[in-house]
Amino acid sequence: MDIDLRVIRDLLETALREDIGSGDITSDSVVPADALAKGTILSKGDGIVAGLDVADEVFRMLDPKVDFRKLVSDGEQIHQGQDLAIAKGSARPILTAERTALNFLQRLSGIATMTSQYVRAASGYPVKIIDTRKTTPGWRVLEKYAVRVGGGHNHRFGLYDAVLIKDNHIAAVGSIVDAVARARERIPHTMTIEVEVKRMDQVPEAIKSGADIIMLDNMDVDMMSQAVRLIGGKAVVEASGGIRLEDIPAVAATGVDLISIGALTNSAIALDISMSISTLERC
Amino acid sequence: MDIDLRVIRDLLETALREDIGSGDITSDSVVPADALAKGTILSKGDGIVAGLDVADEVFRMLDPKVDFRKLVSDGEQIHQGQDLAIAKGSARPILTAERTALNFLQRLSGIATMTSQYVRAASGYPVKIIDTRKTTPGWRVLEKYAVRVGGGHNHRFGLYDAVLIKDNHIAAVGSIVDAVARARERIPHTMTIEVEVKRMDQVPEAIKSGADIIMLDNMDVDMMSQAVRLIGGKAVVEASGGIRLEDIPAVAATGVDLISIGALTNSAIALDISMSISTLERC
Amino acid sequence: MDIDLRVIRDLLETALREDIGSGDITSDSVVPADALAKGTILSKGDGIVAGLDVADEVFRMLDPKVDFRKLVSDGEQIHQGQDLAIAKGSARPILTAERTALNFLQRLSGIATMTSQYVRAASGYPVKIIDTRKTTPGWRVLEKYAVRVGGGHNHRFGLYDAVLIKDNHIAAVGSIVDAVARARERIPHTMTIEVEVKRMDQVPEAIKSGADIIMLDNMDVDMMSQAVRLIGGKAVVEASGGIRLEDIPAVAATGVDLISIGALTNSAIALDISMSISTLERC
Amino acid sequence: MDIDLRVIRDLLETALREDIGSGDITSDSVVPADALAKGTILSKGDGIVAGLDVADEVFRMLDPKVDFRKLVSDGEQIHQGQDLAIAKGSARPILTAERTALNFLQRLSGIATMTSQYVRAASGYPVKIIDTRKTTPGWRVLEKYAVRVGGGHNHRFGLYDAVLIKDNHIAAVGSIVDAVARARERIPHTMTIEVEVKRMDQVPEAIKSGADIIMLDNMDVDMMSQAVRLIGGKAVVEASGGIRLEDIPAVAATGVDLISIGALTNSAIALDISMSISTLERC
Amino acid sequence: MDIDLRVIRDLLETALREDIGSGDITSDSVVPADALAKGTILSKGDGIVAGLDVADEVFRMLDPKVDFRKLVSDGEQIHQGQDLAIAKGSARPILTAERTALNFLQRLSGIATMTSQYVRAASGYPVKIIDTRKTTPGWRVLEKYAVRVGGGHNHRFGLYDAVLIKDNHIAAVGSIVDAVARARERIPHTMTIEVEVKRMDQVPEAIKSGADIIMLDNMDVDMMSQAVRLIGGKAVVEASGGIRLEDIPAVAATGVDLISIGALTNSAIALDISMSISTLERC
Amino acid sequence: MDIDLRVIRDLLETALREDIGSGDITSDSVVPADALAKGTILSKGDGIVAGLDVADEVFRMLDPKVDFRKLVSDGEQIHQGQDLAIAKGSARPILTAERTALNFLQRLSGIATMTSQYVRAASGYPVKIIDTRKTTPGWRVLEKYAVRVGGGHNHRFGLYDAVLIKDNHIAAVGSIVDAVARARERIPHTMTIEVEVKRMDQVPEAIKSGADIIMLDNMDVDMMSQAVRLIGGKAVVEASGGIRLEDIPAVAATGVDLISIGALTNSAIALDISMSISTLERC
Repeated sequence: MDIDLRVIRDLLETALREDIGSGDITSDSVVPADALAKGTILSKGDGIVAGLDVADEVFRMLDPKVDFRKLVSDGEQIHQGQDLAIAKGSARPILTAERTALNFLQRLSGIATMTSQYVRAASGYPVKIIDTRKTTPGWRVLEKYAVRVGGGHNHRFGLYDAVLIKDNHIAAVGSIVDAVARARERIPHTMTIEVEVKRMDQVPEAIKSGADIIMLDNMDVDMMSQAVRLIGGKAVVEASGGIRLEDIPAVAATGVDLISIGALTNSAIALDISMSISTLERC
Repeated sequence: MDIDLRVIRDLLETALREDIGSGDITSDSVVPADALAKGTILSKGDGIVAGLDVADEVFRMLDPKVDFRKLVSDGEQIHQGQDLAIAKGSARPILTAERTALNFLQRLSGIATMTSQYVRAASGYPVKIIDTRKTTPGWRVLEKYAVRVGGGHNHRFGLYDAVLIKDNHIAAVGSIVDAVARARERIPHTMTIEVEVKRMDQVPEAIKSGADIIMLDNMDVDMMSQAVRLIGGKAVVEASGGIRLEDIPAVAATGVDLISIGALTNSAIALDISMSISTLERC
Repeated sequence: MDIDLRVIRDLLETALREDIGSGDITSDSVVPADALAKGTILSKGDGIVAGLDVADEVFRMLDPKVDFRKLVSDGEQIHQGQDLAIAKGSARPILTAERTALNFLQRLSGIATMTSQYVRAASGYPVKIIDTRKTTPGWRVLEKYAVRVGGGHNHRFGLYDAVLIKDNHIAAVGSIVDAVARARERIPHTMTIEVEVKRMDQVPEAIKSGADIIMLDNMDVDMMSQAVRLIGGKAVVEASGGIRLEDIPAVAATGVDLISIGALTNSAIALDISMSISTLERC
Repeated sequence: MDIDLRVIRDLLETALREDIGSGDITSDSVVPADALAKGTILSKGDGIVAGLDVADEVFRMLDPKVDFRKLVSDGEQIHQGQDLAIAKGSARPILTAERTALNFLQRLSGIATMTSQYVRAASGYPVKIIDTRKTTPGWRVLEKYAVRVGGGHNHRFGLYDAVLIKDNHIAAVGSIVDAVARARERIPHTMTIEVEVKRMDQVPEAIKSGADIIMLDNMDVDMMSQAVRLIGGKAVVEASGGIRLEDIPAVAATGVDLISIGALTNSAIALDISMSISTLERC
Repeated sequence: MDIDLRVIRDLLETALREDIGSGDITSDSVVPADALAKGTILSKGDGIVAGLDVADEVFRMLDPKVDFRKLVSDGEQIHQGQDLAIAKGSARPILTAERTALNFLQRLSGIATMTSQYVRAASGYPVKIIDTRKTTPGWRVLEKYAVRVGGGHNHRFGLYDAVLIKDNHIAAVGSIVDAVARARERIPHTMTIEVEVKRMDQVPEAIKSGADIIMLDNMDVDMMSQAVRLIGGKAVVEASGGIRLEDIPAVAATGVDLISIGALTNSAIALDISMSISTLERC
Repeated sequence: MDIDLRVIRDLLETALREDIGSGDITSDSVVPADALAKGTILSKGDGIVAGLDVADEVFRMLDPKVDFRKLVSDGEQIHQGQDLAIAKGSARPILTAERTALNFLQRLSGIATMTSQYVRAASGYPVKIIDTRKTTPGWRVLEKYAVRVGGGHNHRFGLYDAVLIKDNHIAAVGSIVDAVARARERIPHTMTIEVEVKRMDQVPEAIKSGADIIMLDNMDVDMMSQAVRLIGGKAVVEASGGIRLEDIPAVAATGVDLISIGALTNSAIALDISMSISTLERC
């Protein structure tokens, strides 16, 4: 699935308003209205690029006549010093949009880069690296896109598109079996139910409940292996909870289907990307 | 300056809509409408807490009757295992708001924690650690608040509240002196002008231009010392560009007034904070 | 699942703005500001009531001090002449809100009533009556709620929470098997895939594709029976396409799991509900 | 009066967001980004078409490059099997917009069709069929447009553009004469006043009050005739309240100027209209 | 008609956002969070006060706990030095809201004051002073309220609630009679039609067209008298176009029913109103 | 600084919605859909024009195909009877937009004209005429633009971009020195601090506090001269409070750097500008 720019239009509007406020006083007072500029976006680090179409959209929201050309595509491995895209046109909108465009690009590329490291660590195993709902508020759709760009897969998008029953929900209703039954009765036939288990003795009940997916939360590798055997294909199995990059091979080896990593979206380091501007003849 | 919750209301609305969408199908189908819950927010790491009032607001936006009590205040040092706040009330809104509230709290506390490390590294020097415009789009006001909570100070809030003339602006108009003059003629008397210099030979011109602040961009420590001497108090001096935590003492020793760090807002690691829920008697 | 009033707040705001515009000139000019009123909502027909909490919210949005008491609850069978609720308070807001509140109540009760007729027609069969995406634009969540109130179940909420592959999608990619494979590779593990088939020869391919749900579109009852046997429990089976109330028992007898009815949400007759107002002493 | 698409832009945006949410996962995952499609909108029933420009706008909101050609115009009688319009362009936006565009078209055509039946029943009499404020919240302007397309006329648009004094308003102020006088004193000279009467003895007072329009609410045909004679042209006369299609000729024969029908907008059956898609060569 | 605060809520929100932006840095940094204040709103000029409920709302939007007490009511004559209202509560929100509240109060009182001067000039004549659509964009409803407070009446609220046919419309369709006929055919029976005439020879045609209201645009007093006689009660008559305060008695004496004054809303001088704050004990 | 039309887009949308509401019933019913028109905007008074790009934008928001040509530019002196711009295109959108476009143009030109009178009165003195925050709520950015067009300069834009400490703030914290110190500690290094003084004995403390700007509020000319001498260049000096046009030379002669005038934005008389329309051949 690609990113649908219409879905994130409000965030882009918010981002530009937030930075521009009552006006870009530097560009508007210093740069002549008819000055032209060519901005070259280049990487100052190594990683996986994500968000080039978002950056493109940011420039064109300020001035539809800006000519934006991508030199690479989202998902490509990029290297320090590499040019990623060129924006040409009126100098003022390019200067005004620069920081916002880069802020999107740096964050999304940071997430894609981190995801790709986890995916690589799991290579050779039939397991998917997936994200969580630990995303930056306002950025859910974008950050999940960046995870896909980095080779990962997505967990549910929100509270609305799948059931995920945690210990607190179970406590409120008495048992896993009852909780799953209540949910199954009420949800559309298109939706699935995942149940979180923290202890081995919960696994048989989770299986019995008919949950489609069982999440093993904060279990050690031995417990995970045991749980996977117990489940025996009767449900999809997700490993979750504080799993670090160096833990991935061992967790993958347990036979779980999915490993979810909150850090992908809440602790990625921005990839260092900047823009260098050269001024063209005036129009 | 405290955080003004009214200013971030739209982001909180967006965050809740994004997660809830057409409804929290798990809570709404599994948890009885009259179930009560007590949620304890606790830290699983060490750091500086920031965003407790934001979390409070998130819960109350879902249900004004939720009773939220802070056990610590923003800016306090917290430790692994420490309880931070308690939310009591109807179980459904507490469960629905949980992830969004934590996502704010984790990110803001991560920024405050990272900032406090830079501030500590600079202790003993009359220098301020400041942020940049490298913030998460949509989060500018909140992230700048978290920097203050961590002991840092803020740079300008956006393109609208101060002039910052970079090399590209200078290129467009010919010289630093001309650029500053153009800006000074047009801006309110309440606004100041900062000029970015990358080479030593630009420093005298920046001084001559009458800029209020001079930013030394990507200079090494020796160049910075020389520039500070040259400026000799005629302008406030900011050091900027790829300065790492371990560089802080040496940069501070050059005599610059400010050190700006983009990583504070674009590369902070989320502080691990979670919520543990116990169910109360039904109402 | 109950209705979450927060999710429909924007529609309620829109509805009130649309009717009130620059002001309710009748109430504001004719009715004294301190007049009190008691409005009794009563049914002029038989059916299933739905939307009482929505009506309550409409009154309270105009004046939080209006006292709204439900005499019945959503889902109850009501009869001509029966009182449903009482709104007491300041006369102006009650008069201003009346039409909007009734418009919601009439439409939602109409949908619940129609749904209950289909559900009754299917009673005795292990089949669910479900809705479609043929809802009134802007009303998706509300109308799907009314279907549940009437005893029906929901299909997916939108294009975002389940995959439904129709003939056009298949045409674009070549085969059902390829289409399902492409989707499965990209969607979260929590999502399911439904495939629409129109001819009997597509059924084996749909089974082979591993689709979770197979929709039999516009098939006659004999074909449906044959398809159900062929599928033999390997997928959930939905009957769809122009099925009328009188067709329900025969379709249900084919053994399909679900019967979807577009008319529930796009062709329901409003249940006739009105408000009778008596004026109280002035405050 | 035509429909002004700018006025309904917000509803169209809402409709698309509601259906698309975080993305059309079927089209985005199954259909190649460069696939082209030709969608033919065709009617599966007989009636009056309304909303073709709305459908056009929906497609173009998703992709301004979609080429939409109307084969008929709003207000034309259409027949089962007749093609109404063709949309050509990129396959993904056409597939994504399909359901929303049809939902508008079906509902509006249903209203126009029902209206035309009432208008036909009144033909030969100098009476207008008009709508009411019993519209679908959020759809007021659109539904009133569909009524005009079907040959009907509009009543006031909302609470803001004319005074309509009902029994409850009268009760609050004491008498029809006082109520009209209070309103007349306060409203712009461009606005008119309508008074609702339910009993014959109220008619003389309504005349005396100087009301511009008198609404006869829920009267039988004999009472209406008597009221029309009494009013004798001193006010415009509207018949209202539960008037069925089969009652129209008799009501029209009483000499009333207007017959208002709430069912036009709250109980119309959607006209069955669908889209058939053929895939073109890729671009 | 009173002002309905719900209708102007968006403007108040906009006003506060515009002034507060990313935060009131003066109050937030200088004033302790627990400081209390008592603000006394007082007039520094003579006039008619309008907008006290708006000011009240502004304070309460910033802090619902601010206690706002009116000492006079909208429409009263006030004098230099007179106290108008008192706001008590937390100092920060009172200081932050002060300027916005006063900006509303000053402008609305200026309009009410100017209107009252025109109304007084027309006293003794059966003529109404009315406003126009020459209002401040965004302020239509509020400014029309201020005109009513000053003793004036309103013209139509916008392009949507009455027909006003000007020379340009007439040119487009050929004749006044045709233009009125076209409009009458299409508009609701509740709406009226006004025709603008600039020359005496247009008056008979305007009468013949059946227009409800005839506007005499930019005519001198003799022409107006002649036109009034010609119309002879067959239509309401409005005088319009550059009429100054000193012209009012002569224009009123011509027998016109209405005199419209654009200056009421686009050229009123703000009434000088300020707030004096005393600090209370801290809470 | 020019005006950035993106920043005022919401106000323009609001303005058009406010006037158009559910539709321009006059144009839509009277003017044929294919009629063309040429509208000439002309001045009926002398002054400085401001807002032509805003007017252009208003027309193009209704119809992007309207061809708008400026005959003069913002800031030019215009005279009674002079043509300012021509709008050509479809008649309906031009007629619908006319009033809104003129309302912007008249108000902004009124402000520019008034400002230019104050600027002329101060000519020969090294003093700037500046505006205040006494702007029309919703219009801050636009009105400050009009002040610049008239030759004036801007004060701060809102509560967010500079500190302005008034007597009330001082009262809350004890002394000017303490207030300035509290603010300086918390604000970005890019922001400045202004202090308001009303009495001569406050001037030395204001100087001592290190305030960047000192505002002399409501002082007479002798006091101002004395204060300017006392300050002696250690802070920028602003004169404020009820200064009339005829006072300007005397105030300027005191040596203050800035004179702020609230009347520029809250008491300007609209410049009389109208549109004359001629109808073209139909398209």
